[in-house]
Amino acid sequence: MRRVAIISYGMTKVDRHWNKSIKDLFSEATLKAINKVNIPKVDAIFVGNMCASDLCDQNNIGTVVADHLGMIPIPSYRIEAACGSGGAAILSGFMAVSSGLFDIVVVGGVEKLTDGVGKKATFSLGKAADFEYELFYGITFASLNALIMRRYMEVYKVPREAFADFAVLMHRNGAKNPYAQLQFEINRETVLKSEDIADPIKLYDCAPIGDGAAVVILCPLEDASRYSDSFVEIAGIGSATDTIDIASREDLLLLKSILIAANNAYKMAKVSPSDIDLAEIHDAFTINAALSLEALGFSKRGEFDKLLYDGAFEPDGLIPVNLSGGLKSRGHPVGATGVYQIAEIIMQLLGEAGKNQLKNAEIGLAQNMAGVASNSYVTILKRCR
Amino acid sequence: MRRVAIISYGMTKVDRHWNKSIKDLFSEATLKAINKVNIPKVDAIFVGNMCASDLCDQNNIGTVVADHLGMIPIPSYRIEAACGSGGAAILSGFMAVSSGLFDIVVVGGVEKLTDGVGKKATFSLGKAADFEYELFYGITFASLNALIMRRYMEVYKVPREAFADFAVLMHRNGAKNPYAQLQFEINRETVLKSEDIADPIKLYDCAPIGDGAAVVILCPLEDASRYSDSFVEIAGIGSATDTIDIASREDLLLLKSILIAANNAYKMAKVSPSDIDLAEIHDAFTINAALSLEALGFSKRGEFDKLLYDGAFEPDGLIPVNLSGGLKSRGHPVGATGVYQIAEIIMQLLGEAGKNQLKNAEIGLAQNMAGVASNSYVTILKRCR
Repeated sequence: MRRVAIISYGMTKVDRHWNKSIKDLFSEATLKAINKVNIPKVDAIFVGNMCASDLCDQNNIGTVVADHLGMIPIPSYRIEAACGSGGAAILSGFMAVSSGLFDIVVVGGVEKLTDGVGKKATFSLGKAADFEYELFYGITFASLNALIMRRYMEVYKVPREAFADFAVLMHRNGAKNPYAQLQFEINRETVLKSEDIADPIKLYDCAPIGDGAAVVILCPLEDASRYSDSFVEIAGIGSATDTIDIASREDLLLLKSILIAANNAYKMAKVSPSDIDLAEIHDAFTINAALSLEALGFSKRGEFDKLLYDGAFEPDGLIPVNLSGGLKSRGHPVGATGVYQIAEIIMQLLGEAGKNQLKNAEIGLAQNMAGVASNSYVTILKRCR
Repeated sequence: MRRVAIISYGMTKVDRHWNKSIKDLFSEATLKAINKVNIPKVDAIFVGNMCASDLCDQNNIGTVVADHLGMIPIPSYRIEAACGSGGAAILSGFMAVSSGLFDIVVVGGVEKLTDGVGKKATFSLGKAADFEYELFYGITFASLNALIMRRYMEVYKVPREAFADFAVLMHRNGAKNPYAQLQFEINRETVLKSEDIADPIKLYDCAPIGDGAAVVILCPLEDASRYSDSFVEIAGIGSATDTIDIASREDLLLLKSILIAANNAYKMAKVSPSDIDLAEIHDAFTINAALSLEALGFSKRGEFDKLLYDGAFEPDGLIPVNLSGGLKSRGHPVGATGVYQIAEIIMQLLGEAGKNQLKNAEIGLAQNMAGVASNSYVTILKRCR
């Protein structure tokens, strides 16, 4: 298996980009990535996206973005795994390069949700759930996660405030990230006094609705130094699925697809959770953060709040989490999120993260998922220079 | 690059499956494929689909089908390249196995269009075109192809009847295919007297709206004989894109993405068009057949009718075309079509094609595309036993 490097990245700010289309956003991120490196060509494009068909009346966006970028006739198609589309696109790009079929590959994610703000976006996002057994009955992801958060608080006696305090940390990080949608700090009361979305989930427990695109460029590790002075290796990559409806799960509080994807990625990278210097995790709701950190092996089950108050997830903690601000503050353009996470880890590993820069980070982990982890993608990146 | 075999296939009949859901159809095809071979496990699933979000309110169908099949927690996600989704899924599966990341992979396509019969399906399929410059103005694929067919007839002086006679041939083949949606013969008058869809395109120039799923199982070539007595190799595979809107093309009558994808596939398989024993081509409209056969190198440009009347495309001709009946008669469940084509070639190569069986076929070609070839997938299969 040919080893795979990531030699560049590009992102748009996550925002309500009323005046930019899907192809504008994707092209902006791609050109940023391409302009940083010295590559002779691009061989293929993989685009993660969930909602363009529903909210922009556009399918076939692999071709749409290849055309807009002037990259025709290279192969380009779309990858969809709901909110895990970005992570699935990274996996696709990894296989494309590691197979030897393609050498230099653009992997991106793009989403434009604000065209469908309100019920239209919520319904479209709900299609990540089981239509027949969940969405049809009016359930949303806020309500599914509310059930799980209520149970978590009851089983583990974790106070509701802990979730608010995690959101506070996310906003503290995001306030220093120029790509973040919500670049401001909040306090515990901001969360607790915000509107109920689905009790006990408040508005500030939720990632915002936003638009954005993130892109990375992959190539064989052995060629990477020809194209760029600094790059990272995809040292481990794992993916797994879980039941599409949460009612079929034996244990509501164990996100098994994350656990399995992470174990596969750790094994491939020959590392353990304690070797990871920083992580970008999928905190679409604050409860997702708790369960993700536990499934990734960064916290024992039910002890998310203990580690939070020990400062473990702070920028100078044991395992800095979401220095970007995470989905909560950086934003969650769903099909792009998994690629944003990878780009943010690379920024840190290469020392390009500005005000949020961590010292001496060598190994980073990104965890992306669909819905309540009905599928998951875990990628481990290692600094190479 | 690890060489890749296809060891099994399964299909549902293409039909109006009112009583079967996407997951029912996909599972039926998958279980047929799995039950034919002796495999210890499946490592991943790739699902080609275009319209489930629009017509079935279901995204994330990679997880949906993995769950329904009882195959959780293996990785499973969706590939979308409009009507080329099946071909793109085959390419994804090829890279997955050839990279060495996965060994035994299920690649399938599924589509359920009849839930949206009428305007809803037509609009959903139109999202393969450029929304901003084509679909927004009310254009459909019938009207885009009508423009091209009119031009073809004018430039090459090909009579309208030739397209009707191609449809007659497709129905003659499809009448003998138990998986075909339209299992009956027609004559020239059936086509010429059918309703106008978009002049000069008549109803019988068009593929029908239908539901179905097709699945194949891929594994490393070196392992194939452990799992099955008979199998084929993916000897060549190519893909390319073209402008999303047809107005931007220099030559309306040259489907460049097919030409480039085919040349890449021929080169990889070290064969030329004259080595191909049979082909399944993407005749969503009869004009597509003419342009596809020319771009694939089976006919000189503008001479489609000459070869047709020479009998070249007949079952006993120079290059038997669409022994399945093609999209015209077998049917066109869009995201599944590219996988149906592969399954049909395998049936022929392995001598399992029943009444349509060709003698001594060794090399087959499948050509799948999106819209008016805004992207294309060409796969060349070689018999191995």
